[in-house]
Amino acid sequence: MVTKQEILALIGPELQKIEAVLKNNFQSYVPFINQVSQYILFAGGKRLRPLLMILSTRLCGSKTTEQSYRLSVLFEYLHAATLLHDDVVDEARFRRGRQAAHHLWGNQAVILVGDFLYSRAIRIAVEEGNMDILDVISRTTTLMSEGEVLQLLNLDNVELTEEDYYEVIYRKTAVLISAACEVGAIHANRDGWQRESLKQYGKFLGYAFQITDDLLDYTGVKAETGKDIGNDFKEGKVTLPFILALEEAQPEDRQKLLFLIKKKGAVSKADFDEACKLIEKYDGFSRTREKAALFIKKALEELGKFEPSPTRELLEKLTHFVLIRKN
Amino acid sequence: MVTKQEILALIGPELQKIEAVLKNNFQSYVPFINQVSQYILFAGGKRLRPLLMILSTRLCGSKTTEQSYRLSVLFEYLHAATLLHDDVVDEARFRRGRQAAHHLWGNQAVILVGDFLYSRAIRIAVEEGNMDILDVISRTTTLMSEGEVLQLLNLDNVELTEEDYYEVIYRKTAVLISAACEVGAIHANRDGWQRESLKQYGKFLGYAFQITDDLLDYTGVKAETGKDIGNDFKEGKVTLPFILALEEAQPEDRQKLLFLIKKKGAVSKADFDEACKLIEKYDGFSRTREKAALFIKKALEELGKFEPSPTRELLEKLTHFVLIRKN
Repeated sequence: MVTKQEILALIGPELQKIEAVLKNNFQSYVPFINQVSQYILFAGGKRLRPLLMILSTRLCGSKTTEQSYRLSVLFEYLHAATLLHDDVVDEARFRRGRQAAHHLWGNQAVILVGDFLYSRAIRIAVEEGNMDILDVISRTTTLMSEGEVLQLLNLDNVELTEEDYYEVIYRKTAVLISAACEVGAIHANRDGWQRESLKQYGKFLGYAFQITDDLLDYTGVKAETGKDIGNDFKEGKVTLPFILALEEAQPEDRQKLLFLIKKKGAVSKADFDEACKLIEKYDGFSRTREKAALFIKKALEELGKFEPSPTRELLEKLTHFVLIRKN
Repeated sequence: MVTKQEILALIGPELQKIEAVLKNNFQSYVPFINQVSQYILFAGGKRLRPLLMILSTRLCGSKTTEQSYRLSVLFEYLHAATLLHDDVVDEARFRRGRQAAHHLWGNQAVILVGDFLYSRAIRIAVEEGNMDILDVISRTTTLMSEGEVLQLLNLDNVELTEEDYYEVIYRKTAVLISAACEVGAIHANRDGWQRESLKQYGKFLGYAFQITDDLLDYTGVKAETGKDIGNDFKEGKVTLPFILALEEAQPEDRQKLLFLIKKKGAVSKADFDEACKLIEKYDGFSRTREKAALFIKKALEELGKFEPSPTRELLEKLTHFVLIRKN
């Protein structure tokens, strides 16, 4: 079994380079923008998206250069921009164990700094001067922004189907991870099956990643995840464990689950514990874990199409790790 | 003297084509996004930015095609996106005589639909496939988002200088109008002095446009502007009439002006009238009008570098009209 320490040791050199580019490359004319951006950018993010772009380029047999790292951070900017807008929209109190940015600087500033980071990301893609990359990025951001709206509209829809849920997490998470991997292939000048495989790989990994995230909102520990547990539930946000349990639940348990999630802001610790017990009763958590495992399997199949290499092995370990991560 | 009716008759055919493209070209997979977008896009906007792009292309001697109109609407999307985020940030109640979108759908939805419109604008630029255009657009949006933050930070700065003010309105308004004109030239394959002149023309026109807008916030009539009068003043937003009056004011009047604008939410009708009288006393309004006229003069000088043509004449009329507009 791969451990977090092992992964971190393997990706350490890459992460250092990504951090360096993030630190050096980021400058706004407005010091306040730097302050808010740095708060969100240097809050212990995993740099998963830049890392995946870099490893994807390398998986295609191409060397990564300074330019590759400069390009890779656009995915962190895009991610940070969506986190900022998300937190305002979700009214989240915590992000990665610290106060959400809008609690420190107000919604207004945070909306605008999100806009800035988004512009900055597009600017990096333009500076790269590759129209295929811009095509991927602009499709991705359109899908993502539609996804955010869908998620907001679905907030009161407690009858969300498994299929609806996949549509939401595709746009919320999978499409950006998929874009990072696809852009890695484009950056390596691979426009054929490698580009397609990496796009698919990223998508499946993204699904697994978000499903695990949603599971941790039920079964995680705040000290590890850095987020309030049960936050989604208290917002009435329906995710896979709930959906899978609801499908199987007896009428009485079904009514109970629906009643509890509709309480939203009024959900007590006891309510949440009761919901967890009901979800557990119908194997909602274990079946969610199985679904995530299925996506991991599909992701690994895509990696398997590439020649064995240390990069492939590293990506495989990273992919396995998504399932067992605690934050 | 050019009249609004005359201008509208002259630009009518262009406006119709722009409206048609806006109506047909706009589709999100999410009906709610269409609803919010249409509310802001079809709220009686002047289509100034798409129109300027089209006329700039034509001023360069190039024919405009369906593709030109498709490209032009990206400037309306960008403009609408900033209006949506602005209204949330400003907590505005009215926009173009109707309730601001966030009062109908909530801040959350409006932030996200703004993000969508922004993505859509970038997507149109990518579909055009011209890296120079993308370069202009991505620089522009970065400057604009920084400008929005600057404006927010300056809200409590009642000692804003005339120079600071120009910096704010450059980023808030002039840079996008400038970009629309510059892109018009690029679209006509003019990369030399025409591109530079149209960029400058748009900038000067943008300054004049925003100065007039800020003047109308003092001297306008709600039935004509569709906005609350004195809104900026009540937010403590310092604009040119106030700055120019403050520079000249006797110590006592100066203190009075500063006292009144700092009251913000507590500003009464009588307070606002008193501020207007003081600004009038130091010729704040007439001197603001003179500054706008100076920028109009500079804008016309740029147009004068082009050969005389019906398009140049039309642009000159439009440019003059900015000074006398009532909304």
